Amino acid sequence: MNNHTTARPVVPPGTHRGAGTGEVRLVGGFWGGLQETNARSSLRHCLDWMEKLGWVASFDRVAAGTTAGHRPGWQFSDSEVYKLIEALAWEYARTGDPGTDAMLQDLVRRVAAAQDPDGYLNTCFGHVGRPGRYTDLASGHELYCTGHLLQAAVARVRTVGEDLLVEVARRAADQVCREFGPGGREGLCGHPEIELGLAELGRALGEPRYTEQARLFVERRGRGLLVPPPLQSAAYFQDDQPVREADAWRGHAVRALYLAAGAVDVAVDTGDDDLLDAVRRQWDRSVERRTYLTGGMGSRHQDEGFGDDWELPPDRAYCETCAGVASVMVSWRLHLATGDVRYADLMERTFYNVVATSPRSDGQAFFYANPLQQRVEGADVRPDAENPRAEGGVRAPWFDVSCCPTNVARTLASWHAYAVSVDGDTMTLLQYAAGDVRVALDDGGELVLRVSTAYPADGRVAVEVVAAPARPVTLRLRVPRWADGATLARPGTSPEPVAPGWAEVAVAEGDTLTLDLPTAPRLTWPDPRVDAVRGCVAVERGPLVLCLESVDLPDGVPLDDVRLDVTAPLTAADDGAVAQVVVLALPDPMSGRPPYGPGPSASGTGLRTEVRLVPYHRWAERGPSTMRVFVPVA
Amino acid sequence: MNNHTTARPVVPPGTHRGAGTGEVRLVGGFWGGLQETNARSSLRHCLDWMEKLGWVASFDRVAAGTTAGHRPGWQFSDSEVYKLIEALAWEYARTGDPGTDAMLQDLVRRVAAAQDPDGYLNTCFGHVGRPGRYTDLASGHELYCTGHLLQAAVARVRTVGEDLLVEVARRAADQVCREFGPGGREGLCGHPEIELGLAELGRALGEPRYTEQARLFVERRGRGLLVPPPLQSAAYFQDDQPVREADAWRGHAVRALYLAAGAVDVAVDTGDDDLLDAVRRQWDRSVERRTYLTGGMGSRHQDEGFGDDWELPPDRAYCETCAGVASVMVSWRLHLATGDVRYADLMERTFYNVVATSPRSDGQAFFYANPLQQRVEGADVRPDAENPRAEGGVRAPWFDVSCCPTNVARTLASWHAYAVSVDGDTMTLLQYAAGDVRVALDDGGELVLRVSTAYPADGRVAVEVVAAPARPVTLRLRVPRWADGATLARPGTSPEPVAPGWAEVAVAEGDTLTLDLPTAPRLTWPDPRVDAVRGCVAVERGPLVLCLESVDLPDGVPLDDVRLDVTAPLTAADDGAVAQVVVLALPDPMSGRPPYGPGPSASGTGLRTEVRLVPYHRWAERGPSTMRVFVPVA
Repeated sequence: MNNHTTARPVVPPGTHRGAGTGEVRLVGGFWGGLQETNARSSLRHCLDWMEKLGWVASFDRVAAGTTAGHRPGWQFSDSEVYKLIEALAWEYARTGDPGTDAMLQDLVRRVAAAQDPDGYLNTCFGHVGRPGRYTDLASGHELYCTGHLLQAAVARVRTVGEDLLVEVARRAADQVCREFGPGGREGLCGHPEIELGLAELGRALGEPRYTEQARLFVERRGRGLLVPPPLQSAAYFQDDQPVREADAWRGHAVRALYLAAGAVDVAVDTGDDDLLDAVRRQWDRSVERRTYLTGGMGSRHQDEGFGDDWELPPDRAYCETCAGVASVMVSWRLHLATGDVRYADLMERTFYNVVATSPRSDGQAFFYANPLQQRVEGADVRPDAENPRAEGGVRAPWFDVSCCPTNVARTLASWHAYAVSVDGDTMTLLQYAAGDVRVALDDGGELVLRVSTAYPADGRVAVEVVAAPARPVTLRLRVPRWADGATLARPGTSPEPVAPGWAEVAVAEGDTLTLDLPTAPRLTWPDPRVDAVRGCVAVERGPLVLCLESVDLPDGVPLDDVRLDVTAPLTAADDGAVAQVVVLALPDPMSGRPPYGPGPSASGTGLRTEVRLVPYHRWAERGPSTMRVFVPVA
Repeated sequence: MNNHTTARPVVPPGTHRGAGTGEVRLVGGFWGGLQETNARSSLRHCLDWMEKLGWVASFDRVAAGTTAGHRPGWQFSDSEVYKLIEALAWEYARTGDPGTDAMLQDLVRRVAAAQDPDGYLNTCFGHVGRPGRYTDLASGHELYCTGHLLQAAVARVRTVGEDLLVEVARRAADQVCREFGPGGREGLCGHPEIELGLAELGRALGEPRYTEQARLFVERRGRGLLVPPPLQSAAYFQDDQPVREADAWRGHAVRALYLAAGAVDVAVDTGDDDLLDAVRRQWDRSVERRTYLTGGMGSRHQDEGFGDDWELPPDRAYCETCAGVASVMVSWRLHLATGDVRYADLMERTFYNVVATSPRSDGQAFFYANPLQQRVEGADVRPDAENPRAEGGVRAPWFDVSCCPTNVARTLASWHAYAVSVDGDTMTLLQYAAGDVRVALDDGGELVLRVSTAYPADGRVAVEVVAAPARPVTLRLRVPRWADGATLARPGTSPEPVAPGWAEVAVAEGDTLTLDLPTAPRLTWPDPRVDAVRGCVAVERGPLVLCLESVDLPDGVPLDDVRLDVTAPLTAADDGAVAQVVVLALPDPMSGRPPYGPGPSASGTGLRTEVRLVPYHRWAERGPSTMRVFVPVA
């Protein structure tokens, strides 16, 4: 199994590093549970669907030279196979399960058999009966697919070393560099992803040509080299403005975020502070004005895109699961580059309220979009067929555009790598989960911790220093921005207040620390510029956004009629839910009249009752329902 | 010129009829001015663009047998030529201008030359180098185009009688009936329009086969005969549910509304009350829950579609101009079928705030979408090239998808036909405009009125009965629903209050009536279920919705910072604008922080100043601006 304890997805230059996949082991809890479900259920689920739909067989047909005729799936279906391989690679590193490795190796053999002699690898283009190579850079997703192949190879080479997948990826990357490198075709892909794939494979293999090619792709964007499809604008794929000149993310959210992640990689590898500052500036503006309470990004179904500043409609929130994954990728890179706690704060928010929201509790169905309000009960999905996308209301087993399930799978399989960072003799706990941490410090020796917590159900995090070098070492604990009133009991002292940011402690073997994060339910108010939720309030508890779901209302009361009484106390329930007093019942409008009138509408009769708010990430688990995160204030 | 005084677009069976285009003559004023600009400027503008882009030449190429190679425009570009012909037909009937007729006849000759021997007529399908006839019913728009041809022919046959256009349309309709009639292909068009074209041509030519074919098309919808394009649902083109079973409009708004109009035609012609009731029910629900304050319909850019109940975001309101035109078409048909005043009320709202909003004051640029909030200044449009669509901020001279300009043109050219209705010895003034009305009463004799008014700038409407038969005749005046406090001075009496609905007066020659509609500015509040504008209020004046535009704010004050003080009086300005006191200035959020926090935001310092609100239909005439109809309450 894994000889590469410090294997991790992102390894920029610099002293600050994330945890190796072998350095953190989760023991149950929120994320441990999700990892287990992913391992036990989702990985096989993804493979089964891709076999059933013939997406894997597309590789076999290229290998057999039988590509004429119908090819199932979209032009980007190869990428799903690659993301699954990446997930399997991290999962094998996590557990050493031979079945996982066998599943991966079988897939890799079929992928490898489809590679052309010159390294080109794609099942949609470049073979008999298919369009020619690179004939549709704007929409073809060829380089996008290659980027995911390279990310999968990065996972593999860092966890088991050079193998067939790595060889395949190296040849594919070389082909891309020959085709698009200096003196070659001055093109780029409509969907960013190749940039970060090349940059990371360049790091993993010590191949500066890949970094340089990533840099070229980043620099080519925003110069009008892509021809937008009919009725699309250049902003859709971020070709409207050079990356280093843009002030905010715009257009297709996943594209914008993959591009930003690749740009950070390039900036860090080439020492391009101007480019790094551009992405930081874009993060600032976009998080301030284009990001949902859940951390979700993407305000528009149209173009699956970012909206304008302050355009954050809860009902039409797109908040694609993949955009959540991509946002984590960007924030992680920025955190490693800068050490800023804000990036880790946003990661926590996004992990709990976007990434964890997508998979159904059995790991066999997923949300594609993650709206903050569901106006009509979600239609039942078809359990045995593809659904277009799961855009709201009910998770679907598989989609026509099925980018999210495999993206969730690879993120969950590597989640623990984002929980801890190390810099010299300082170790930082970024995310809280019960488990064991055993980190090789840069200056020698190991720091071994046992973390005990029921987080996020409970805010107490106990950290036991099982082993530490004799010299002074530092442990830092992230105090989330929401954690007003947090306390930390340092070794041998009673609890003292700690402010949001970093709580730093010099630790020695045998020490025990207790961090108490306040998880009493709290009201969260929107900035008045977020027009769409004016007059509303949300309820949060720890890192969890809560929501009101129709299945928790008294019979016959529509969700539209509910008002929250903000003067009444919020009562925490043991199961993570929260009870609140609401005022119910609005008058019905006259039928067939416009919903606008000469006076403010009465707020209805004051039937008061207690209702439960439940964690958003678990909504829609009890049958079709309506739901809202922001509830109007009584 | 016009021998057909009573020519009108919609002539259902029954005693209740609209005004003939020769029965009402506008003299200046709001709509008279728009008609003049349309005649003088927009018609030629549309023709010039379609010549420049080669959309008219597509017909020439079919005639010449040179269709191989590139064909400019979308698959539905023929329909723009037909709508322009329809506009020219109504315009020629209105004024008798020979240049208008010559323009029409020249276009008709070129269209006629492209007709196949069997009557088929389309420049995108069915010829050398083009896809075969009816090979893409879901997206091809062939029958949609034909429907517009038939509507143009209806205008022509009723205003000048049988001519080449009518012959072309008859042969095209016959071909459709042969192809899709009983025993033929059981197909239908993805974009409704053929239904109402066939129904009206059937009425105009006394051809029941056309009515029957329209009925078949209406009945075929909602049975899954259309295959949705990738990522589309059947609801997009209303194929999810039979028309008579649906409760609300859904999917693509223009499609839904053209279909509803055709369904009313079929229902009325066949005495199908169940079908009529279905459309009335859909109108009720959709007007109550899916319609903007402006009368605009279509809440989503995605699919250019209706949203769910109460989903009415102002910033992402699509409110396509064509949907406004189509809504007028539906309401007019329902009004003729039922006499209900509510339909005329909605028509007024839509005329002033959607149809009149689209054209720039010079008639040479148009809005495609009509949002109620503009968050960022509209980008400059390209004056000499197609723009994708004019979706917000700046009117564009022409669009890639240019359905709106010609739709506005045909509506303006025939606007006066919707202003009056007649039933036996009762005449009703539905819309108010200065001009002359000379109506042939069904029971013989003429009722001649002179209407004097500066409506909507002023609410006084004076009606002089210039001539009337000696027997008792009745004049009815519509009192709009918003006109709380209206008074009517009947002949020889002082003003008395009249309630919204119909004010009925027995009139005789020489009588003068004065209707006073209150046009003082008023506050209009949204139903609390319209989440997107909670805590906001709009200002209206008579039938006009007003808006706050950034160019009217003090320098440096962002529109987002403005709050309306609803306790301060609204002051009417002479130019139709309204002054109001507002509270300004919000605190800035911390950069890079999520826009959500632990307490309600302070509303900022209370800089108070007067600002002007201007009629919505004239916004964006003073350079790029931001704008909002619903303003947060202080």
